Parts: sequence; structure tokens; C-alpha cells
Amino acid sequence: MKIAIINGPNLNLLGKREPEIYGSITFEAFFTELKVAYPAVELYYFQSNVEGELINEIQRVGYSFDGIILNAGGYTHTSVAIGDSIAAITTKVIEVHISNIEAREEFRKLSHISAKAAGSIVGLGLSGYKLAIDWFIEHK
Amino acid sequence: MKIAIINGPNLNLLGKREPEIYGSITFEAFFTELKVAYPAVELYYFQSNVEGELINEIQRVGYSFDGIILNAGGYTHTSVAIGDSIAAITTKVIEVHISNIEAREEFRKLSHISAKAAGSIVGLGLSGYKLAIDWFIEHK
Amino acid sequence: MKIAIINGPNLNLLGKREPEIYGSITFEAFFTELKVAYPAVELYYFQSNVEGELINEIQRVGYSFDGIILNAGGYTHTSVAIGDSIAAITTKVIEVHISNIEAREEFRKLSHISAKAAGSIVGLGLSGYKLAIDWFIEHK
Amino acid sequence: MKIAIINGPNLNLLGKREPEIYGSITFEAFFTELKVAYPAVELYYFQSNVEGELINEIQRVGYSFDGIILNAGGYTHTSVAIGDSIAAITTKVIEVHISNIEAREEFRKLSHISAKAAGSIVGLGLSGYKLAIDWFIEHK
Amino acid sequence: MKIAIINGPNLNLLGKREPEIYGSITFEAFFTELKVAYPAVELYYFQSNVEGELINEIQRVGYSFDGIILNAGGYTHTSVAIGDSIAAITTKVIEVHISNIEAREEFRKLSHISAKAAGSIVGLGLSGYKLAIDWFIEHK
Amino acid sequence: MKIAIINGPNLNLLGKREPEIYGSITFEAFFTELKVAYPAVELYYFQSNVEGELINEIQRVGYSFDGIILNAGGYTHTSVAIGDSIAAITTKVIEVHISNIEAREEFRKLSHISAKAAGSIVGLGLSGYKLAIDWFIEHK
Amino acid sequence: MKIAIINGPNLNLLGKREPEIYGSITFEAFFTELKVAYPAVELYYFQSNVEGELINEIQRVGYSFDGIILNAGGYTHTSVAIGDSIAAITTKVIEVHISNIEAREEFRKLSHISAKAAGSIVGLGLSGYKLAIDWFIEHK
Amino acid sequence: MKIAIINGPNLNLLGKREPEIYGSITFEAFFTELKVAYPAVELYYFQSNVEGELINEIQRVGYSFDGIILNAGGYTHTSVAIGDSIAAITTKVIEVHISNIEAREEFRKLSHISAKAAGSIVGLGLSGYKLAIDWFIEHK
Amino acid sequence: MKIAIINGPNLNLLGKREPEIYGSITFEAFFTELKVAYPAVELYYFQSNVEGELINEIQRVGYSFDGIILNAGGYTHTSVAIGDSIAAITTKVIEVHISNIEAREEFRKLSHISAKAAGSIVGLGLSGYKLAIDWFIEHK
Amino acid sequence: MKIAIINGPNLNLLGKREPEIYGSITFEAFFTELKVAYPAVELYYFQSNVEGELINEIQRVGYSFDGIILNAGGYTHTSVAIGDSIAAITTKVIEVHISNIEAREEFRKLSHISAKAAGSIVGLGLSGYKLAIDWFIEHK
Amino acid sequence: MKIAIINGPNLNLLGKREPEIYGSITFEAFFTELKVAYPAVELYYFQSNVEGELINEIQRVGYSFDGIILNAGGYTHTSVAIGDSIAAITTKVIEVHISNIEAREEFRKLSHISAKAAGSIVGLGLSGYKLAIDWFIEHK
Amino acid sequence: MKIAIINGPNLNLLGKREPEIYGSITFEAFFTELKVAYPAVELYYFQSNVEGELINEIQRVGYSFDGIILNAGGYTHTSVAIGDSIAAITTKVIEVHISNIEAREEFRKLSHISAKAAGSIVGLGLSGYKLAIDWFIEHK
Repeated sequence: MKIAIINGPNLNLLGKREPEIYGSITFEAFFTELKVAYPAVELYYFQSNVEGELINEIQRVGYSFDGIILNAGGYTHTSVAIGDSIAAITTKVIEVHISNIEAREEFRKLSHISAKAAGSIVGLGLSGYKLAIDWFIEHK
Repeated sequence: MKIAIINGPNLNLLGKREPEIYGSITFEAFFTELKVAYPAVELYYFQSNVEGELINEIQRVGYSFDGIILNAGGYTHTSVAIGDSIAAITTKVIEVHISNIEAREEFRKLSHISAKAAGSIVGLGLSGYKLAIDWFIEHK
Repeated sequence: MKIAIINGPNLNLLGKREPEIYGSITFEAFFTELKVAYPAVELYYFQSNVEGELINEIQRVGYSFDGIILNAGGYTHTSVAIGDSIAAITTKVIEVHISNIEAREEFRKLSHISAKAAGSIVGLGLSGYKLAIDWFIEHK
Repeated sequence: MKIAIINGPNLNLLGKREPEIYGSITFEAFFTELKVAYPAVELYYFQSNVEGELINEIQRVGYSFDGIILNAGGYTHTSVAIGDSIAAITTKVIEVHISNIEAREEFRKLSHISAKAAGSIVGLGLSGYKLAIDWFIEHK
Repeated sequence: MKIAIINGPNLNLLGKREPEIYGSITFEAFFTELKVAYPAVELYYFQSNVEGELINEIQRVGYSFDGIILNAGGYTHTSVAIGDSIAAITTKVIEVHISNIEAREEFRKLSHISAKAAGSIVGLGLSGYKLAIDWFIEHK
Repeated sequence: MKIAIINGPNLNLLGKREPEIYGSITFEAFFTELKVAYPAVELYYFQSNVEGELINEIQRVGYSFDGIILNAGGYTHTSVAIGDSIAAITTKVIEVHISNIEAREEFRKLSHISAKAAGSIVGLGLSGYKLAIDWFIEHK
Repeated sequence: MKIAIINGPNLNLLGKREPEIYGSITFEAFFTELKVAYPAVELYYFQSNVEGELINEIQRVGYSFDGIILNAGGYTHTSVAIGDSIAAITTKVIEVHISNIEAREEFRKLSHISAKAAGSIVGLGLSGYKLAIDWFIEHK
Repeated sequence: MKIAIINGPNLNLLGKREPEIYGSITFEAFFTELKVAYPAVELYYFQSNVEGELINEIQRVGYSFDGIILNAGGYTHTSVAIGDSIAAITTKVIEVHISNIEAREEFRKLSHISAKAAGSIVGLGLSGYKLAIDWFIEHK
Repeated sequence: MKIAIINGPNLNLLGKREPEIYGSITFEAFFTELKVAYPAVELYYFQSNVEGELINEIQRVGYSFDGIILNAGGYTHTSVAIGDSIAAITTKVIEVHISNIEAREEFRKLSHISAKAAGSIVGLGLSGYKLAIDWFIEHK
Repeated sequence: MKIAIINGPNLNLLGKREPEIYGSITFEAFFTELKVAYPAVELYYFQSNVEGELINEIQRVGYSFDGIILNAGGYTHTSVAIGDSIAAITTKVIEVHISNIEAREEFRKLSHISAKAAGSIVGLGLSGYKLAIDWFIEHK
Repeated sequence: MKIAIINGPNLNLLGKREPEIYGSITFEAFFTELKVAYPAVELYYFQSNVEGELINEIQRVGYSFDGIILNAGGYTHTSVAIGDSIAAITTKVIEVHISNIEAREEFRKLSHISAKAAGSIVGLGLSGYKLAIDWFIEHK
Repeated sequence: MKIAIINGPNLNLLGKREPEIYGSITFEAFFTELKVAYPAVELYYFQSNVEGELINEIQRVGYSFDGIILNAGGYTHTSVAIGDSIAAITTKVIEVHISNIEAREEFRKLSHISAKAAGSIVGLGLSGYKLAIDWFIEHK
């Protein structure tokens, strides 16, 4: 089973940026933990700050992988193009956000991803990625 | 560990209402499965179509339970009072929705629950309840 | 043929509340007239000020009755949950309003019931209930 | 007793246009049925695609007829001028729509007619015209 | 002189919920103080989390009492039906809020109660209830 | 000097419609008075309930007359096309309204005519037409 | 007959400010012309850039003068208080604007004055003041 | 092959109205050119300033012609009824605008025609009509 | 104990302006009554129609008085600057309105004062000032 | 004559993505057809999912090519920056969309490209590109 | 070289009001520093809480000074009249704000000054005044 | 001292694009002037049309440089992600715009940068960059 985790802008700063909100572990360290925790799953990780590179990656994996876990960061609220790419592929996408975006600024309430994704896991920290993997395993 | 599942209006129709969307299993049957799957967790289930009875229940369990899983159904989009009750209690609340409400009518995009809850799991079917229990177990 | 009339909040005040708008007859007296006028129809009447009890009743009759005439009163404009209950049942619903809600406050122009109901009869006084019964008889 | 039925734009296509929504009977045929069904009522029928001709007709019959049944079609949502004409005359007007306009496009939720009419019958098919005639007979 | 105090959702948590905002006294204790302070007034107290039960109570006392002091809590911002009940009764209503709702979330700026009440006292703590009683005494 | 007065929908009802607002004189009688009062001006009068006929007339006189006084009635608030016709012609247009439209319904605050006209005279009764003629005389 | 002309902010710059829009004559010079043109009218002129001084003046003349011609300049669009002062006095007020404010910035379309004034004359240059005087003479 | 060109309000002024925007050729002259350029196509031309006459024409040709090229002028932005007529007929419609309406006033951004038409050609001058004919020829 | 009452625009007309709404007593006479009723309180009264003079006064008393009772009249709805002055001082401010502003025009629902004040008393007539004094006495 | 076709995000999926909407031909195959059909035109094709690379390309060809045909895909609705690049260059741009974006989601009605482009061709399938080339040829 | 610094409401409280935001130096002290720092510039300082006095001052210096530095405080967001005065004068105006108004309340995002000023310096503390002087010196 | 100047989309066209607005000097030439003018400051310059590359650069310099001067061009109004990157780093950012964006299109009034930046300098031409450097020097 192949699952891609695709992280968007500023998520490469995890562990460095506002640790009281996002925790002090880097995503790379967390990803290593994930691979240990799910040895039967082929996990793949991609991060970019460039909207179009996220689309490139979604397109690349979106016809063959068993699942995509997408945290589009700030592009969540502005990118029609990423939403379109999710609608165009055949792999199911689960949207994940580490913090509770509904409890933050008004403009974070609009998501161009949610309606095109299978579902969303929001505000549950890095555990959100795990729960998404669990869901893909259960529904494979 | 004690976790309460609180379901709001029309969720008592599960298995009967639009099975192509909501599945053909009743929530009672699903709840029996959950109790089997999580023998170590003391699971409690409450459903009401009355907004105020949901608040009563949230208040009743909200100072002693380890977690609340709340699917407020149609009240999600209109109930300031349920949102207030979540803010008033000390138990953490995870909001769950079976279907992807972001992909439905415009008025379902507003949630009075999300910003007051710890997080949300949306669109992942009945599995959303399981993932929420998993999260409470992991973060106990 | 079984038809349920379900009235929402403050409609129990009919005959007492602003009689220049709503008339001076109580709904109970009017209901007695209806039963006399339609001896062949099994008419049922329910009123509650509690939103969730209206949903309970809609669910109770909504799979076996031949028609529901619903005047949700003030909940018309705010209740996603009642709208959801109408969408969930199999009995057809006609929305009735005694006064012309379009000619009143701005917030009364939004109805969460209309789009889910078969149709609406608005502003034609208590006769609206009669016309709705006539329609159910014609389309039985 | 004299009642005018005034139909607006595209209602001349009835029976020809989207019969799965509007039925396959023409309005002329339906009108013949109506005249048979209500021999004691002097029924008059007018249709035009021109907004101003509808106003001309409303003005012409609006001081002497016992009732006007108005289906303004697409002008319902845009015509302040037709709304003004209803406010200016002395004959009562009942607004009728064949389909449930509240369940269609967003822009069909605004009516310039409703607040000026005595009441509205919406979504009940061609029967809406009959119910309106019944109401005028009852309240003559 | 008979005055009813009617409190809405979550006000039963007073003294328990966010004491830094709402104080640490329970409403029951405060109500005992009120009865001592106003021996000549027949004070009555009702609380419910159920919107419709608030309406029931408003209707029950609304034709015979000398005043109603209503703190509708979270229903203030969403309940057309409570607003309608105030408009339907003959007893005057003063709206009270303990905290300054204008200084909180945007959605708390809309009140369905204010326009139907005689007036409002907002942000002055539990004293707001006293001032309202004083006003009813002065204007009896 | 040639001035055209062009009146829109329902203004043919003047003297008949709501005389407490619009006065009890017909426009024809008023127009006779105007011709007596301004013998040196060649006055022309046109009224139609049809939007397009108003445009036809504006186009017909709009390249040769010295002034147009336009009261577009209900079309004021909805007709982009009449606004366009004013922008297209070379004769100056003064917009006149008999009653104070700003003090009426919200939707009457939008005018598609005002920005394209030379100016507006609103709320000053039939005298508004006289003042407009005076202005054209002064600025000829 | 006593008529007050009250001009608001920046109208003291007339003749100096953007003469291609507002003309090159000062208001003082124009006012001298007015007094010559209307010898039988007692004309009074007041200008201030201070909102409250305009209110003071409106109140001072508003119970004894036969008419007020008010050009509130930029306060037109923002001053509830001036609107209130017009509603409070007994003298009729005509709102005048020299340029066509509807053809300028979006925010100039809102007037707090119009609905409280008897009527408005907009876009007709300094002649607007004359027409307003003519109207007061005609309706004295 | 039969194609109808239907032009709405003020398009009869082409060549006369703002030639720097719309060019100095009349539509009649342009239409003659078109007939020469497309000898194999039976071209038909209709223009009216009356909204309802445009609907009449759309209905008349809308079940037998091979294509309709519609420039609804100012009605584009306000006419639900024309949009409805396009949805009701079976002939495909291409919307054409001579100037770039997106670069003009805000209210020209709303089109009631676009969503019901097969497509739109905007801002490309009179050539837009030619391109539309080319498209119908290619897709016949 | 020193309390300042600061009244905004048009409140100097009390007793003169719309007495059926505001009563027929002048504020000066009412203030004399207040001083008699509260001999132990040093009461101070200031009124101005000028927004900036109200700010001057708020600043002057805002660091030494025990309370400010502010009725900003029409500036309530438009003055960010008065709101800022309340936020800048150390004396607590209670906002008072004589009539129920929530039951009047839409634009009166926005208050720039409420969120910055300690609380508000609205719609309770001149008694509102008394209740505010009572509150300051109780909380001194 | 040199014309550049610049396609934005997800248009590289043409032929693969939702073929019932977008057809089953790839853009590369279509582009080959185009080059055969227009041997006299030097056609150039560029596609990127990266917003900034589209800008780079627009800048690169925007001062020397004879025309740009731009289908900005999802960036159409969100990219101020692409709109700015079109305004900055000297080559004319025609906006093309394959499907009728006006008939799709609400957020697709806003275009940051349209107002800056010479014109738009929408909903006419791949033929839209051809028509745009034809236009450039005709207007070279 | 003559530069006027014009400060609006509540800026006279500088050093006294919320020193953690605005610093503890008074503007008078800061102005003395400025005069020392720029001996070659004739600096002038004016502060008022009265909107109209700010306009008076802008008009007084606005035709002869070399620059105006305007911090309109709370009037920034509400004063069309100050915006008009800036547009009317010939001296260039730079808008300065001490704190970052974009990071504060929503209503502070609207400025009636910005579009009429040459430019703005926001959020850079008292240094903003210095930078504005530097700019006037550089561009004299 | 190290300061980075980061310019966004289309700013590489400076000197080439609309020189009447942006001047005829290239940014490279201006940057050479800056380095001469500030020999003690280590100035660094980066430009990209790609949103994500701007984020990469902001992250790269944002933990070690003494200041960032950011002109995000068209991304200013649409990029939540760039705003997030500014919030995530520790270096202070000053937002600069060459032209007065408040005086241009409506959509340029929204900035996702301003609230996260220390401050903004807008409309003061290339000098804005200098003033920002001056500010960093003064506040180092």
C-alpha cells in the first residue's frame, strides 16, 4: 500500500516555528516515526512552498497511489488550482491540518480543498496524519 | 477511560435515511461494534433531536469524562448555545461529521462547533467516530 | 388517508396573539372545523414550541402518513435540523404560513423549510391549511 | 365572479419546455379544464413575454376583477415595476409558481412580487392555480 | 408585584463556568440575595437549556406578570422564535446580559431579542438583574 | 426649445394610485398646466409601461431635443438598458421622482439612471418636473 | 419668507477647488447674486467644516425658518447625527449637491440626509440652490 | 444552415453611439458583409429594445435554427427571463459582446445569459459575431 | 463620588423633539431632579453637538471621575474616535440610550461605543441614567 | 506571425481528466493539429502548473509576439499577479476557457484575467483556441 | 521649507494612553526633538479632536506649505470630509499611523485618507513622522 | 547589518513597465545606487515571480538578517502563505509598495502582508525602500 504525504508552504519550519502551537518535533523526525509505526505501508513524503510543485506532485502520485494526505498550509484558503488537481485525479485525498484553523483568522475558514477531498482531519496535531493513514488502511 | 458519543438531530435515522449517503447500518448496531472493538474504554451514547437536551448532556458529562465525540447534525450550523456549552466545560470535544459537509449546501460551511472543539473529523464516514476514540486513547 | 398538521412555536397562541393579524379563532377550534369539513381524512394535530419535538413528530409520522402540513413558525428561518428531517422522510410536506412572511422583517425571507418541502402556501390565512389538504387529496 | 390568470415569460412554452419539470399539458389545455371545473367563475387568461404588457394587463383588470392569479415567471425576481403595479391596484393578487423556486438557483429566492401580493402558492404544480381560484371563491 | 427571571442555556453553570468572566457565585445563591433585597416583589426564577421551554415559560407568565427579565444566553443571537414570543405577550421584557456581548465574537452582535424587548442592560454583571427589577418597580 | 417628458411604469395611474402620496391630479391634467405655464417651450409627453418602448423614445428624441425629463418609475432601480440609452444619446437628461425614494424600500436606493443623467430632482412632487424645465431654460 | 442655506465641509473652497468641476465663482459671490435675484426672500448663509456646528445651526433655524437648503458635503455620507437633526426640527429641508455624486465614488451613493429631507436636487450645479428656493416659494 | 443573430437594447445605435468604443459601422452594414462572407449560411437578423420581444424571437427560432448568436446588451445583466428562454429552447446559443464588459462597471460582471449559453465571446469587437458563425459551422 | 453625564448631538432638544418618543421633560429639568435624588454624588453634565468636544470632555474627566454616563446620540453609530477615547481613559463608561435603538433603523444597530464601554443600558427612557448612577454607586 | 499558447494548472491532464467534460484528446495532439491547420503561423506552446512560471513566460513573449492565448486554469480566479503581468506587456492577450466556467462553481465567476485581456472566448471547447488564432490573424 | 504635522483625535494623549503600544513620550516632547533634528525645516504642529478643525487646518496650510504629515487617528476610518479636503488642496499629504492599524480591528482597515494621500507610512512608531519629513526633503 | 530586499511578481519589469507610474529606472540600477548610499549596510536583493520562491527566500534570510523589505507585488492581495511565512520568522519585515495601491482597484485594498509585517510604506516611490532601510538602521 502506497500513501503520499504532501505538505505545503511553511510546514518545513515545523519544530522551528511557533513550537507552542506546532510542537517542537520536525516533520522529518515525525516522518521517521511514522515509517517505523507503519512498516507495511510504503510512505512517501513531499514538501514544497511552491503551489505549482504541489500540483505537479499531486498529479504524479494521483493515479497510482492508494491515498494522499494533503496539508496545503496557507494555499488551503486560496488555491482553486490545487482543488482542481484533487478533483482531476483518481486517488482519494484526506485533508489534514495540525492546528484548529476554524479557531484562527476569519480568512482561514474558507477551504478550496475540503469540498474536493474525501474528508478532513483538523486540529488534532500531528496525530491527524496517523489517523489519516489508519483510515486508508481500513478502507483499502 | 470514559468517552461519550453525543449525536444530534436526525442521526437516529441512520440506516434508514438516505442509505446511499449514510450507509445502511443503524447507529445502535455500530455502537455495539464500537464497544466490542474498544473493550477497555467505557463508551456512552446519547442522541437527541432537542438542542437543549444535547446541552444538558454535554454539561452532565463535560466535567468528568475523558472525551466527548459530538456530531451535532443540523445544529452544527446554527447553535451558538451548543458552542457555548463546549467552551464552558473542561472535557475536550472532537467534532465528527459522517458526510463531507463542505461539499454540500453553502449554509453547511458555517460551524458554531469547530472553533470551540479541539478538532474535527469530517467526511470519513462512521470511521470518524473510531478515529476520534483512537485520538482520545493516544492523548489520555 | 392520514394527514398530520404540525405547528411550531407560538402558534398555540392563535386567537390570543395579535388577533388583527392572526384572527380570533383558536387553532383547536379551527381544527375541529377541519375535521368536520374533511370527514374522509384522518387528521392529526401536533403543536410544540420545542424544535426537537417537532423533529421527533416529523420523524414519527414521516414514513407512514400521506401528507404533512408544516407551519414551523419562527423555526422556519433558523432550523437547518427541521429542514434535514423533511429531507430524510418519505412523506411529502407542504409548508404553510398564515401571514405573508415576505412582507414582514428581512430575516423572515430566509426559509430552511421551503427548499426541502414539496411546496409552500403563504399569506392566505388559515385557509392555507385547507388548500394543503385539498392538494394532498387531489394528489393521493 | 371574475378572475384573471396572468402568466409571464416562457410560460407559453408549457407542455413543450422541460416536460419532466413542468408536465406535458399546454396551459391552453389546462385553462379549458379550469373553465369546465369552475363554470360559475368568469375566468380570463393572458400571457405575455413583455414585462410592460403584464403591467398593462394588471392595471386593466386591477380595479374591477375579483382576483388576479399572477405567475410572473422570470420577472418575479427582477421586476420592481410589476411589484409596484400590484401595490397600486385594488384587486387582490395571489402569486403562483408551478415549480419550487426555493429549491432552484439562488437568484430565484428573491421575489419582488411576494411582499406586494396577498399570498403565494409555490411548487404545487398546475394545481396551484386551482387552489388560488378556490381561495378567491372562499373569500369573495 | 410579580417579576419572572428567565435564564437560557449554560446560565445554570454560573459560578462554575469561567469564573473570571462570570464570577464565582451561583445564580441560585444570587437569587436568594435578590429575594432578600426585594421582599415586596414576588420573584420567580426559571432556567432551561431548551429553547422551546423558554418560550413555554415566557408564554405562561407573559400575560399576568408585571415584568420579565430575560437572559436568553446563546439563543439571543439565533432565536427568531423567542423574539416572536416576546412580541406576542403583553408583559414587558427587559433583556439582560452579564458580560459585554458587543466586546466578544462578531456573531454575538446580532440579537433577535433586543428589538422586541422594552430595553436591554448589558455588561453590568449580575447587577443588571437588580437594575431591571428597579426599573420595573419604578414603572409599575 | 423642445423638451420631452418621459414617464415609466405605473405613472399613468397618477391621480388614481395612492393619492395621499402622489396627489389626485392626473399627469395629463398636470401636463396641460405645464404647457400653459411654459408657452415658449415645445413640450412633449410620452408614457409607457414597457421598458424597451422607453428606450425607443429616449433614442428617438435623444439627438435633437434640448432636454429630456425622465421618471423611469420602477425601472429606475433595475434597468441597465435605460441607463445605457442615456449614455448613448447627446441630449441631457434630468431624472425626476415625485416621492422621496430614499425614504422608501431599501431596493429603491439603487438607481441605474442617476450616474448617467446630468442630475436628479427627487421628492419634490410634481414640481420636480417644473424645476427641471426651469433648469433646461436657464442652461439652454 | 426666511430661507437658510447651510453648506458643509470644503464648500468654502468653491471657486478655488477643482474649478473644472465646481466652477470658478465663490459661494459668497453666488450668494450675493441670489440675494439680488430673490429680493422678497430673507436669505441667510452659513458654512462650517465642523459637523456639530452644522447641527447647531440646523437646530437654531429649524423651528422658525420657512426652509433650509442643506449641502452637507462629505458629511452627507457619514453623519447620522445631521440626519437626526433634520428629523428633529419642523422646518423642511431640501438636500442640494452641486456635482452628480452618484457618478463619483461608490461611498458617495449612501446618504444619511436624503431619507430625512423633503427631497434632493443633485448634479445641477449652483442652479440647484435656485431651484430649491423656487420650490420653497411655490410651496410656502 | 440557419443562424439567427439577435441583438438587444441600444445595439441599433451602432455606428452612431460612442464610435471610439463600438466603431463607426452600422450593424446593418456589417450584416450585409456577413451575408457576403457566408453565402452558404442562411443568416437572419433581429434587433429590439424590448426584453419580451427578444424572448419572443428566441422562442420563435429556438426549436428549428442551427444556432443563435445573442448579444443581449444591457439585459445581459438583469434578465432572468431571457436566461430562462435560452434554457427552454433546443438550439444552442453563443453569447457575444462587442466590448470587454469585464473591464467596465462592476454591475456588468454579472451575466444571466452566460451560464445558460453554450459559450461566450467577449471583447473581440464585431469579429465576435464571425467567430460564433465559424464555430456553428465547425460544430454543425 | 464624581459622575459625569455626557450627552451627544440633538439630545439638547429633549422635551422639544418628538415628545411621544423622548418625553416632554428637558434634560436640564431632569438633571435637576437627578441632583436632588443623589445628593451624595457630585454630578456633572455636558452636552455638545460636536464630536470632538465630546472627546475633549471624555478626556478631561476620564482620569479622575468615578464614572461616565455617555449617550453619544447619532455619533454612537459612526464615531471610531469616541470609541478610541473611551479605550484610552481609565474611568469606566456606561453607554445609555433613551429609546430602543435596536428597534429602529438598521444603521443604528452598529455601535462603536458598546465594545469599549463597561456596559450599556438601552431603551429604558431617562431612567437609564438613574440605573447607571445606581450601578456606579454600587461598584464604587 | 508568432502566437504563444500558454496553459495553466491541470491543463496538462487534458485527455486524461474528466474526458466527458474536456474531451479525450491530449493538448499535445491538438497542438499538432493546430500547427498543421495554421502553417503560416509560428505557434508556440507552454504549460506549467506554477503561477510564477506562467508569469515568466508571459513576460518573455509579451513584448515580441503577435498574440498570446492564455488559459490560466484555476489561477484565473485567484491570480492578481498574472493579471498584472498582462497589463504590463505590450502583446494582446485573449483569454480562453474550454468549459463554460460561468455554469460551474460560484468562485469561478470571478476572473482576474478578463479585465486585463483584450477579450475572452469561453465554453466553446478546444475550438476556442482556433477562434483566438483566427482573430489574431484577422487583426494582425 | 515648511511642513505641517496635523494630528487627529486622542493623539494628544500620547505618552499617557496605553504606553506599551504608543510609547511613553508625549508628542510635544517628540516634536521638540524633531525641531532639533531638522533645523532647516520650518516645522508646524497642530492637534485637534474636532474633525472640522482638522479640515480647517488642512485648508489653511494646504496651498502654501511644502508638505503635510497627517495622522487622522480614528477619523481615518470614517471621514469622507477630511479625504475631500486632501483632494482639494495642492500640498502633498503623507498619511502616518504610529501603530499597525492593519493588525487591529477590522474597521481600521478602511481608510478614507489613503487613496487621496500621496502615500502612507504605517506601524513604524514615531519614526514614521521622521521618514515622512525625510521624504519631503528628498522630493522638494 | 544585513538587510534583504525581496521583490515579487512583475517588479523585474521596473523601468520597462508603465514608466509614467513606476519610473524609468530598473531596479538593478536603483539597487546599485542603494549600495552606494548605504556602504555600511550589507544589502541583498532577490526577485521572483514564483510565490513559493519568495517564501523560500523569506525563510532562508528570516532567522539571521536584521531586516527584510518586502514588496510582494500582486501576491500582496492573495497570498496567505507569504503572510504565514512572515509570521513564522524572527526577522522584522517592512512592506513596501511603490505606487499608492489604495488609490487603485478595489481588490488591491486587501493585504495579507500588512497585518503580519512590522509596518508598511506605500505610495512613496522607490524612496520607500530607502526609508525602510533608514528605519532598520535607526531601530537596530
